[in-house]
Amino acid sequence: MPQQQPHIPSHPQQNSAESPDSSYVVGADIGGTNLRLGLADRHGAIIAKWSASTAGIRNPEVVVALVSDGVEAMLQQASVPRSSLRAIAAGAPGVTDVDQGVVIATSYLMGWRDVPLRALLQAALGVPASIDNDVNLAAIGESWAGVAQGARDFAFLAIGTGIGAGIVLNGQIFRGQGWTAGEIGYMLVPGTPEEPVERGKPGALEGIVGGEGIQAQWQSRWSEASTPLPKSATATQIFDHALDEHNPLAQQVLETASRTLAYAIYNISLILNCPLFVLGGGVGVHPALCNTTRSILAQRSARVQPQLVRSALGSDAQLTGAIRLALQTADSRVALSRT
Amino acid sequence: MPQQQPHIPSHPQQNSAESPDSSYVVGADIGGTNLRLGLADRHGAIIAKWSASTAGIRNPEVVVALVSDGVEAMLQQASVPRSSLRAIAAGAPGVTDVDQGVVIATSYLMGWRDVPLRALLQAALGVPASIDNDVNLAAIGESWAGVAQGARDFAFLAIGTGIGAGIVLNGQIFRGQGWTAGEIGYMLVPGTPEEPVERGKPGALEGIVGGEGIQAQWQSRWSEASTPLPKSATATQIFDHALDEHNPLAQQVLETASRTLAYAIYNISLILNCPLFVLGGGVGVHPALCNTTRSILAQRSARVQPQLVRSALGSDAQLTGAIRLALQTADSRVALSRT
Repeated sequence: MPQQQPHIPSHPQQNSAESPDSSYVVGADIGGTNLRLGLADRHGAIIAKWSASTAGIRNPEVVVALVSDGVEAMLQQASVPRSSLRAIAAGAPGVTDVDQGVVIATSYLMGWRDVPLRALLQAALGVPASIDNDVNLAAIGESWAGVAQGARDFAFLAIGTGIGAGIVLNGQIFRGQGWTAGEIGYMLVPGTPEEPVERGKPGALEGIVGGEGIQAQWQSRWSEASTPLPKSATATQIFDHALDEHNPLAQQVLETASRTLAYAIYNISLILNCPLFVLGGGVGVHPALCNTTRSILAQRSARVQPQLVRSALGSDAQLTGAIRLALQTADSRVALSRT
Repeated sequence: MPQQQPHIPSHPQQNSAESPDSSYVVGADIGGTNLRLGLADRHGAIIAKWSASTAGIRNPEVVVALVSDGVEAMLQQASVPRSSLRAIAAGAPGVTDVDQGVVIATSYLMGWRDVPLRALLQAALGVPASIDNDVNLAAIGESWAGVAQGARDFAFLAIGTGIGAGIVLNGQIFRGQGWTAGEIGYMLVPGTPEEPVERGKPGALEGIVGGEGIQAQWQSRWSEASTPLPKSATATQIFDHALDEHNPLAQQVLETASRTLAYAIYNISLILNCPLFVLGGGVGVHPALCNTTRSILAQRSARVQPQLVRSALGSDAQLTGAIRLALQTADSRVALSRT
């Protein structure tokens, strides 16, 4: 099941020649379907990557054992001695108490409740560990090495199955008193249903803008005559179909998702005077969504029009942020922003 | 026009006996219809108040001259020598650059653009001055001496003619990159019109929740048979009518305003994980609005249900915050929170 992947040095920084006793860190992106690891030198350059499926695995101890296996594999592959590993940081798809190192709750497949992930990682690997919510780590990644470098205030919107935001204010992640800041999937805007939604079920906003919501809308409007694309199409296929084939049905679904997303972005920009939004996640990085949302936003007068850009790091955003956090964990003297 | 008012020691702190050479500060609440001043000792106890109408006055120099007159009157009334005045702080109803001391823009009657209010006050009074947005000062007031004491994160919602928020995060006012954080009058929620609104016109949210919007809704539904209250009733009268007389028409208007406000509060609480909302302003302090909004909010499941309370300081919130800021201006060693 664990698949060792070839060395992919994707980080923008140069990998300087390191002596064997140099410092290395590991970043981990723990998702409901995949675990992705990166081994990086003390400059943040990734020298090895490793990934494995987490499908069907829910037990936190098993996930941590998998992380441990992957770290061993990467160290061997890169010929880095175990003693040179200085820290690990991991992102989890849920509400995370950063101070206590506990994953309070995860939605979707993982279903974790009060998992002491930091302690488990420290025990398994024998190095200092840090954890954070995965969307927060993606925001840290974009701030450190992506399109948000130098941005004092911005929001990273991760749009995949659902939708969540990593909010950076005054150069720092804002997590909120109960660690749930940025849980915008339940946001109410014109067009979202008003009926209260049970906690844990997809929220009003993600029911229209998230991947599953987009598929549901496609299915409710689909007819064989209106499109060659199957009823089971994914959000990305539907957006491609709208962009490349100008299919009216696909364009309707794209327009509805974009308008709803534009309203959510507009609300966040009003509340926080937020000048920059980075769209990430499997659905969020699609250029059709970004372009359509941007043109809807532009119709609204605003003192400062928020800028909308696609993630530069794509699916590496979380991992990059995890490496950044691991470097900070190894050396607390490193500041959040390179700029 | 300027009306000297009797001494009203309204501050919760005791006024300790001061020697004539003690320190005093002035707080000023500059509004489109009224100017309100308070003279306070170094503990923040208000020892004199003064107010004047600003109706028809738009020239910033004239407003500052009025402030100067009021300060003289209060010093005389309280037998405080001019040399004991240490600082002044003023709140203005608009976008305020706190660093530069400039009111960038005011909406409604005042219409100021790029007014160097801090410099004007310093020149007129010969003491250090600070300025801030009036809603931010109200939030500071509630944090210092009102219902938000000890709250790390909260939002003060000022609902009068329009609606604005003062947002406190990690114990500090969050002002945003362009000083417009909290300008939520344009927020979009289910029920608000989707058509883009011209900048300067009442926004989508305040068109339903603000005093003028509430009156407009009342007028559009009003008929002589349905209520003894006139078509020209104010928002407060309409809410009283709903609360005391259970008039169905008034209750409809109250319900619509409350539902729309509840949605806005819910959105802010999702984005910021904000646990406390303080309702202030002439319309916002009405108990019917607070109670109805609270019960609508309670229907929505949330990890943490945000608490909704009415301002403790009422119309003194801005002035109290201005005094707090003036004390900080006089002595930067004083921290934001007393707790």
